[in-house]
Amino acid sequence: MTDRPKIYLAGPEVFLAESQAVAETMKERCAAQGLVGVFPLDSALDLAGKPPAVQAKLIYEANIALIGQCAGVAANMSPFRGPSMDPGTAFEIGYAAALGKPVVGYASNAGDYLTRVRAWAGGTLRRDGGRWRDGQGWEVEDFGLSDNLMMARAVRSVEDGFDAALIALRAAFDER
Amino acid sequence: MTDRPKIYLAGPEVFLAESQAVAETMKERCAAQGLVGVFPLDSALDLAGKPPAVQAKLIYEANIALIGQCAGVAANMSPFRGPSMDPGTAFEIGYAAALGKPVVGYASNAGDYLTRVRAWAGGTLRRDGGRWRDGQGWEVEDFGLSDNLMMARAVRSVEDGFDAALIALRAAFDER
Repeated sequence: MTDRPKIYLAGPEVFLAESQAVAETMKERCAAQGLVGVFPLDSALDLAGKPPAVQAKLIYEANIALIGQCAGVAANMSPFRGPSMDPGTAFEIGYAAALGKPVVGYASNAGDYLTRVRAWAGGTLRRDGGRWRDGQGWEVEDFGLSDNLMMARAVRSVEDGFDAALIALRAAFDER
Repeated sequence: MTDRPKIYLAGPEVFLAESQAVAETMKERCAAQGLVGVFPLDSALDLAGKPPAVQAKLIYEANIALIGQCAGVAANMSPFRGPSMDPGTAFEIGYAAALGKPVVGYASNAGDYLTRVRAWAGGTLRRDGGRWRDGQGWEVEDFGLSDNLMMARAVRSVEDGFDAALIALRAAFDER
């Protein structure tokens, strides 16, 4: 495969003040791997003066359209406001998985999900019939995965960094 | 429409110690609305003795198969281990949305996402150029929605409770 597949850059980077600069850097790193990075903010949307619900609808529709146009997804699965990844990115992994597009994840080094939840819960986890439960009684998944098994199994792998994810995604295209 | 559509019951209830009893009650409430509730644990999986990663793979494949067999999804979008919903459920909303299946959400009354994050952040939010940011610099979405706009816009509505979600889902089937 000699073309440069487009990949959707799923992750919470859209919420950074310097998101556009971050996007440019990410796209350069995509290009270095023979990929074209597509950032969620790439759609030219005219949101000015529109009610918040309409803005949200336009952003949603633009993002799923971009996923549909891409050949695969690189997803930032690092912990976000809690022990799990950004849930908007979890949604997008699910969306891409249903479309049969390859998804590769990457995450900051925060251990497996049980380790993350244990740190988040501050020692309130308890053992109950061979399972770990948090202070509200919810079982804590313990499959050695980086997050909830739906996302962690939907991705081909969870790499240690963005460049490693790009290399894995490029390999996924090349083996087709 | 006189049949009884199957709906997938997405949510963190699978993590409750009494999950099977909860599932039975939820299915009775589905039946009362002319719907057949399908719980994520309904697949008869033989997980005994299998390595955790294999168990996770089998559960993942069973769940996406169940979503594929259902006509729609009712999704519990209540806050889970943080200001956002269970990310596994966010994944499933995305998966169902990509398949074009109607999804209705419901959530415990926790206000809009900004309100949730403000409570979670304990007063550390700051105003920056007309946008709210948390202590790590991540912008906090402020669209008046219950969660990240991807999930909140993918669903037809976010109802106050499970029965209201079932009624909305039943109406979605009836209008077809």
